[in-house]
Amino acid sequence: MAFSIGNIEDVLAKNAGLINGALDSLLPQGDAGHSVIYDAMRYSAMDGGKRIRPYLTLEFCRLAGGDVTAALPYACAVECVHTYSLIHDDLPCMDDDDMRRGKPTSHKKFGEANALLAGDALLTYAFGLIAENPFADAERNARAVSVLASAAGHDGMIGGQVLDMMYAEREAALEEIVEMERKKTGELIAAAAALGLVAADAPEEMFASARTYAFNIGLSFQLIDDILDVDAGDGEATVMSVLTVDEARGLAAELTAAAIDAVVRYERAGDLVALAKWLLHRNA
Amino acid sequence: MAFSIGNIEDVLAKNAGLINGALDSLLPQGDAGHSVIYDAMRYSAMDGGKRIRPYLTLEFCRLAGGDVTAALPYACAVECVHTYSLIHDDLPCMDDDDMRRGKPTSHKKFGEANALLAGDALLTYAFGLIAENPFADAERNARAVSVLASAAGHDGMIGGQVLDMMYAEREAALEEIVEMERKKTGELIAAAAALGLVAADAPEEMFASARTYAFNIGLSFQLIDDILDVDAGDGEATVMSVLTVDEARGLAAELTAAAIDAVVRYERAGDLVALAKWLLHRNA
Repeated sequence: MAFSIGNIEDVLAKNAGLINGALDSLLPQGDAGHSVIYDAMRYSAMDGGKRIRPYLTLEFCRLAGGDVTAALPYACAVECVHTYSLIHDDLPCMDDDDMRRGKPTSHKKFGEANALLAGDALLTYAFGLIAENPFADAERNARAVSVLASAAGHDGMIGGQVLDMMYAEREAALEEIVEMERKKTGELIAAAAALGLVAADAPEEMFASARTYAFNIGLSFQLIDDILDVDAGDGEATVMSVLTVDEARGLAAELTAAAIDAVVRYERAGDLVALAKWLLHRNA
Repeated sequence: MAFSIGNIEDVLAKNAGLINGALDSLLPQGDAGHSVIYDAMRYSAMDGGKRIRPYLTLEFCRLAGGDVTAALPYACAVECVHTYSLIHDDLPCMDDDDMRRGKPTSHKKFGEANALLAGDALLTYAFGLIAENPFADAERNARAVSVLASAAGHDGMIGGQVLDMMYAEREAALEEIVEMERKKTGELIAAAAALGLVAADAPEEMFASARTYAFNIGLSFQLIDDILDVDAGDGEATVMSVLTVDEARGLAAELTAAAIDAVVRYERAGDLVALAKWLLHRNA
């Protein structure tokens, strides 16, 4: 079976439209005279991006033959968690970034205290969105909360962030950097995929496939990012401190093949395969 | 029926023991060489205090004839959310406090970035604890997540925090201050009580009673705090900027009476009545 990257950019754009529409209707809307927290939540959550994480939620729901209506609130919750992590990462006590996606970061726009609270509010809101998803039953909603909390928490995304700060202060081995990336970005990507399966009430064996696919595209994506940063002369402490560009490209290709291998047997896997290839070849 | 304050301090101490034991076993425990996030989460969550919020979860569960085993994970989740809010409130971009309960605040002990992440991790963990509560079914767990997310979020605790920052910059009327306090502290106290009822699968009519009780003791508690601060010469912009001490004491007594009135008809309300009286009369 041959798949081409073909129209994956169109597919992503269409799904981003669906996700943006859902976020716009689900994010709290203040009355006249509402507090700044409403604006700060929307400012960051509605700022675009390719919406790859929530797309994975929708696509894995489709892969399992589910109705994406049930997956949309989960997809929005994943994006809220991703957005909160960016807001907090940008704060002066973390990366101290002034700009994100061509506009001022939340604390530059609203001040540090409001940015802190907007991140807290998006994280909190994400769990409420899931728990109150009217298109799934309580079993699925409770499981989805558990999946997301575990992926975002002290042993997932936050744990990876802590490792990242630790490795900024000492040399780290390739294995350690991979483990850090797996936690820092891979766990949330894996949760995004898993939530689509939860929404579809998919058979358990699909969860392992989704996890393999997600971790591999996540790590490949990070490698390509790191390679592009090296090409651009921006030398952070990443996997590029222990790999040559050729080695990193080879590893990214292997990871992509493993990702494809994990899902290719499913009938509706075409877009997931195309996404994996597209992530590998972007800007390279 | 006459209730005395009697042994409410013993009751609180016994329940705090139960809650501390549950927190100790439920909070993540790192392996040797674990990351600092484990220590930072425990440092703040295990720092004592009277545990009044989680006590309310247990006591409202008992009030409804429930088994506190099912309520304990919810109670711990409430305390994790309370703890996260204190860690973030203490940060330099918020209140910039160096000490809390006689020891250095989280960011003084672990640095700002780790304190930020420890708060994030406790908030995240709280929702996982609820969703995975093995002593309640998925219906109750999903409802409990929803109750807590709503109370802690942009229209609850975080919303109150934003109002508080707003009123630090301009005069606020009594009504506005009461609304701010209701959100900033009342909503989480009300959620603590409601979660006990969720755990016990209590009849709907009890939820309104719990809410009335919780808001009234919460506001009364805040008034007494504000009065004690005035007595100590510490003049923040609180309800004391618009009320005399006598007016504030009168209002606190009225609120306490209303709280007691909301629960006194229930057979097992003795300790809740004693708590309301005890909170009114402490240190005064």
